[in-house]
Amino acid sequence: MATQMKEMNVTATRNGLDLEQMVQTVEAIKAKPEIAQFRFRARNRWITGGENRSTIRDFYGACAEDQSRDKPFEFTNGEPPVLLGNNEGANPVEFLLHALAGCVTTTTVLHAAARGITIKSLSTELEGDIDLHGMLGLDENVAPGYRRIRIKMNIEADCSDDELADLLQFAQAHSPVCNTVCRPVPVVIERV
Amino acid sequence: MATQMKEMNVTATRNGLDLEQMVQTVEAIKAKPEIAQFRFRARNRWITGGENRSTIRDFYGACAEDQSRDKPFEFTNGEPPVLLGNNEGANPVEFLLHALAGCVTTTTVLHAAARGITIKSLSTELEGDIDLHGMLGLDENVAPGYRRIRIKMNIEADCSDDELADLLQFAQAHSPVCNTVCRPVPVVIERV
Repeated sequence: MATQMKEMNVTATRNGLDLEQMVQTVEAIKAKPEIAQFRFRARNRWITGGENRSTIRDFYGACAEDQSRDKPFEFTNGEPPVLLGNNEGANPVEFLLHALAGCVTTTTVLHAAARGITIKSLSTELEGDIDLHGMLGLDENVAPGYRRIRIKMNIEADCSDDELADLLQFAQAHSPVCNTVCRPVPVVIERV
Repeated sequence: MATQMKEMNVTATRNGLDLEQMVQTVEAIKAKPEIAQFRFRARNRWITGGENRSTIRDFYGACAEDQSRDKPFEFTNGEPPVLLGNNEGANPVEFLLHALAGCVTTTTVLHAAARGITIKSLSTELEGDIDLHGMLGLDENVAPGYRRIRIKMNIEADCSDDELADLLQFAQAHSPVCNTVCRPVPVVIERV
């Protein structure tokens, strides 16, 4: 009996994810689609020059305001001296790469778990090219944002190369940040 | 003479930006366009589940590898419990909002300085909607990324409402992160 209870308390995980919670989440969304609607938020305040700070805490999802965070996360944007700053923080286009790296990684790990694939290790190196002629308004034919972003991924998993290639293609297509970058997403600014 | 030297040491700034360095940067780019080519980077390593960590330090720009950062910035992506995590950090789609807020703010402040507009205060609140049906692959008609992103901006400046409206429109169109989100930017993943 003691052995049985002990076994019942062992949560089955794969890639660090609770498989039962994964299945329950998907089943809950199928039963009640509005559970899948999320609204994420950030509040930012300008300090001076290229320095500004965000707080991130609340969001709406699973039909409720989230209450899980005791205090907000805080992040500081800055700029290096060559871009008129003092390295007060990473700069916004670098934070975008961090967001993209994390999202592709988490989406890969999640769908690997769903497919029964165990990830042994996963690391990425990202590079993106920007021509300042765009941001500075010196040439209206130059896009102000990234021209393209390259992700070099080093991944080890207990599956075949074909299965891994299929997983990576699926994860790239379903990563929320990657999709936000690859697809034109409307941004609306409203003065209040 | 002492007074004169003291005056010479006063750097003219607007919105916390060194105006002389701003002008010099633009003149340098006009004289040598390749100065404007930047390549930003991030390195990320998966920890477990939805937790992974980026280091950001080096980048290429102004025709050289930057040497200004003694140590890397480090940021941790995590997920809240409702998304199978333990709030190890903000999640990637939240970091994207931080990047977007910071970039729109810095681009506004920079172009305000160039136009002779002094910003007194600037804060933003961002919200973005995501339907998890996309990321989970439950409905291929639902985009995995943000459907749209709203920025509520509270800004005070020493200019007319029309000048401010024109500044904000220009800044939105020239912000590198905003442009990366609004425009389809190719992301290439390569296994190494």
